[in-house]
Amino acid sequence: MPIEDSSFKKLQGIVGHTHCSRKKEDLVCYAYDATGHAYMPDAVLFPQNTNEVSRILKTANEDRFFVIPRGSGSGMTGGSLAVNGGVVLVMTRFSRIHHIDKDNLIAHVEPGLVTGSFHRAVEKEGLFYPPDPSSSEFSTLGGNLAECAGGPRALKYGVTRDYVLGVEAVIPTGEIITTGTQTTKGVVGYDLTRLLIGSEGTLGVITRMTLRLLPLPEAIRTMSAVFAQVETAAETVSEIIRRSIIPRTIEFMDNASIRCVENHLKIGLPTEADALLIIEVDGKPPDIDMTIEELKTICISRGANRVDVARSQEEVERLWKARKSISPALFQYGPDKLSEDIVVPRSKIPDMVRMINRLKVETGLMMVSFGHAGDGNIHFNIMLDKKNKGALKKANAALETLFDYTLELGGTISGEHGIGITKTPYMAKEIGPVELMLMKKIKKAFDPNGILNPGKIFKNGFEI
Amino acid sequence: MPIEDSSFKKLQGIVGHTHCSRKKEDLVCYAYDATGHAYMPDAVLFPQNTNEVSRILKTANEDRFFVIPRGSGSGMTGGSLAVNGGVVLVMTRFSRIHHIDKDNLIAHVEPGLVTGSFHRAVEKEGLFYPPDPSSSEFSTLGGNLAECAGGPRALKYGVTRDYVLGVEAVIPTGEIITTGTQTTKGVVGYDLTRLLIGSEGTLGVITRMTLRLLPLPEAIRTMSAVFAQVETAAETVSEIIRRSIIPRTIEFMDNASIRCVENHLKIGLPTEADALLIIEVDGKPPDIDMTIEELKTICISRGANRVDVARSQEEVERLWKARKSISPALFQYGPDKLSEDIVVPRSKIPDMVRMINRLKVETGLMMVSFGHAGDGNIHFNIMLDKKNKGALKKANAALETLFDYTLELGGTISGEHGIGITKTPYMAKEIGPVELMLMKKIKKAFDPNGILNPGKIFKNGFEI
Repeated sequence: MPIEDSSFKKLQGIVGHTHCSRKKEDLVCYAYDATGHAYMPDAVLFPQNTNEVSRILKTANEDRFFVIPRGSGSGMTGGSLAVNGGVVLVMTRFSRIHHIDKDNLIAHVEPGLVTGSFHRAVEKEGLFYPPDPSSSEFSTLGGNLAECAGGPRALKYGVTRDYVLGVEAVIPTGEIITTGTQTTKGVVGYDLTRLLIGSEGTLGVITRMTLRLLPLPEAIRTMSAVFAQVETAAETVSEIIRRSIIPRTIEFMDNASIRCVENHLKIGLPTEADALLIIEVDGKPPDIDMTIEELKTICISRGANRVDVARSQEEVERLWKARKSISPALFQYGPDKLSEDIVVPRSKIPDMVRMINRLKVETGLMMVSFGHAGDGNIHFNIMLDKKNKGALKKANAALETLFDYTLELGGTISGEHGIGITKTPYMAKEIGPVELMLMKKIKKAFDPNGILNPGKIFKNGFEI
Repeated sequence: MPIEDSSFKKLQGIVGHTHCSRKKEDLVCYAYDATGHAYMPDAVLFPQNTNEVSRILKTANEDRFFVIPRGSGSGMTGGSLAVNGGVVLVMTRFSRIHHIDKDNLIAHVEPGLVTGSFHRAVEKEGLFYPPDPSSSEFSTLGGNLAECAGGPRALKYGVTRDYVLGVEAVIPTGEIITTGTQTTKGVVGYDLTRLLIGSEGTLGVITRMTLRLLPLPEAIRTMSAVFAQVETAAETVSEIIRRSIIPRTIEFMDNASIRCVENHLKIGLPTEADALLIIEVDGKPPDIDMTIEELKTICISRGANRVDVARSQEEVERLWKARKSISPALFQYGPDKLSEDIVVPRSKIPDMVRMINRLKVETGLMMVSFGHAGDGNIHFNIMLDKKNKGALKKANAALETLFDYTLELGGTISGEHGIGITKTPYMAKEIGPVELMLMKKIKKAFDPNGILNPGKIFKNGFEI
């Protein structure tokens, strides 16, 4: 369904000539996302208010062209790509904070706001918005919501889903809906809010959201622990939780992650270590200092070679810079990345580590693991040159094995990146035919003509 | 659609003769719930496993009779009543705890388990399941999930929705579905788990659930504060949150609640007080003792006449006995209760208190307010004799005013009780026609023949 000239004229009328384009140099900027895949859209639009989004979707529904909503394009599975052409709806002009309400611990914001900007805005008021995907310096809140983003702090604080009270959204027919409440409690009708969260932009375009906030924790303590064996690090994670300690993060880097970040940043990471844990606790100072001491003891008793508590803000930032640089730094190992996002019950991480080691040996491929060990959420990457067909075939076979084993351990094939286009081949491993049929019927209820973000989640469309 | 003899024979074949009945003395036991309304079902069934539930629903879908799932019948809005006849599916034989997994902080349980039994079972393991509706000693986890139950601890810990990771359920066609994950993170496909939560038994019958647990807090401190003015108590609640303190509960009783409980229990409550707050904090002892001191200071500086910190477990239990006895004790004030469950942003509680006072004066009716002040969740009750048509008319008009004002303040007409049958007349005040249409389409996707729990949520059915 490429867009007709007559439809494009209508769109120009809605957003104004300066906020839409069909020029190739504009389109190419909105053709890609963090997967590295690229698909040229037919047009790109920059609406500025809900009414414009409503009129755009109404036009698309009547004239039958595709609309693909997009924030910063930092998604990891292709959710914002125009895989079948159509109009990319860039939501970055929706970047206002309407209100930060200290009394009720909520904020009313627009979806194009960058997550990190929102963090800083609420922290200035002594408040706290926990979800923090590693992309928070460029990803938008709308994208976070569409994918149900997680991040390191999910261990203690949960994911995006746990902080969205309600939204305003435009459904594919162009109608504007308001879901949820401004309060934590609210049980009037079906939970359309959480249905939109994680729906990857396939059910509606979010135009406004009410987010739940917490008081900003008084203080944070950060430590790192170095292990000679990945398995020992993994077992330490389980031991921490078993001792009833819930840090705000337990992040994990394997040897390949450590080496490539060190090579990239030269900040003195222990390149000989098999695994590094970054552990952070927050709360009131006398309390968290005791907890850090307990954590040190646990790490050392479980076999850590070295434990360091960060003594300055610079040391904290250095650790997080290392952790957040992994994903971009990985390209030292190969021009292409197969990036996965599995989750297993945390007690099963040692099993998963053994499986990953086996796959490394069997395939000889460059595999890198890091992630949110406290949640059992492992970002597993295979670095390769996709033009090497032999390597690609071996990599895909390894992924099949990995996903099957993830599900066997009681896990899920995606913790925070979603299905998008890159994981559609694997979705049926986790979602049964009846559940998939219900999802297709829900999609059909919201989007009878299939104009919104086609080709995502459902491998073969959502016709029943 | 009364059930045919031939259909009943099939049901006998599924659950066995001893686990189904059409005898009036059996039916009458399952005709009522906590609303006081009663509707005789045609039959009552006691299935014991998922396969039986699947076959029952398949039969109902083919033979077209209604099925009404039910836990303990402690619902406050009629969700488990057979308003159009049909078969009541009593789920209380599904009462097993399959596994409490300390390493992964999850539990696999059946829906017929009584919430309080589950609390005790996990607490024995040093774990904690926060949702605690006041009915927890008799309500079931399945009912809690169907209504998205809240309770006092929601202020710090959230509601049932925040503790359900996944479910097994039987949809009205008899098909068995598995939703969600065993892990906090998981974003594969649409969120069917939260769609089922709060759907009041209209989309599926839950047969198993995976619940998220926390480590049991080390200690709890409980205090009460007595106020001469409801407004002052309400403003104190706002002030506590503004100071970045999130107690686990801030419960509120008005003068009418205090007097009726005191009259009932004779435990020395301050019957002259206009309002009583019960505040509870949990965490590590040095920390929470400091917090309690801060709370005392805040309460006194905001005008509390008296503040008491409970010095023994008996004193704590006395306070909670008072709080949990309100609902049953209210019948001293009249044979019938119109029981509401509004929520307003907590900073608006003083406005709501003033409105309630105005309605009391204007109508001369007996009105009682209590509830979860920290969440802005007020259980507002009008006690009357429904045979007094004049009083009933005045009461209904007062409710209309109250609901309109609740929504004007940015609140919701139901925080934790759901819509059921008693609130269907008011649902359109909060849910717009487009949102309602989406909900009806979702219902239709799950239940094409409308056999599951008819007459609930949707006032005029869900035909589109």
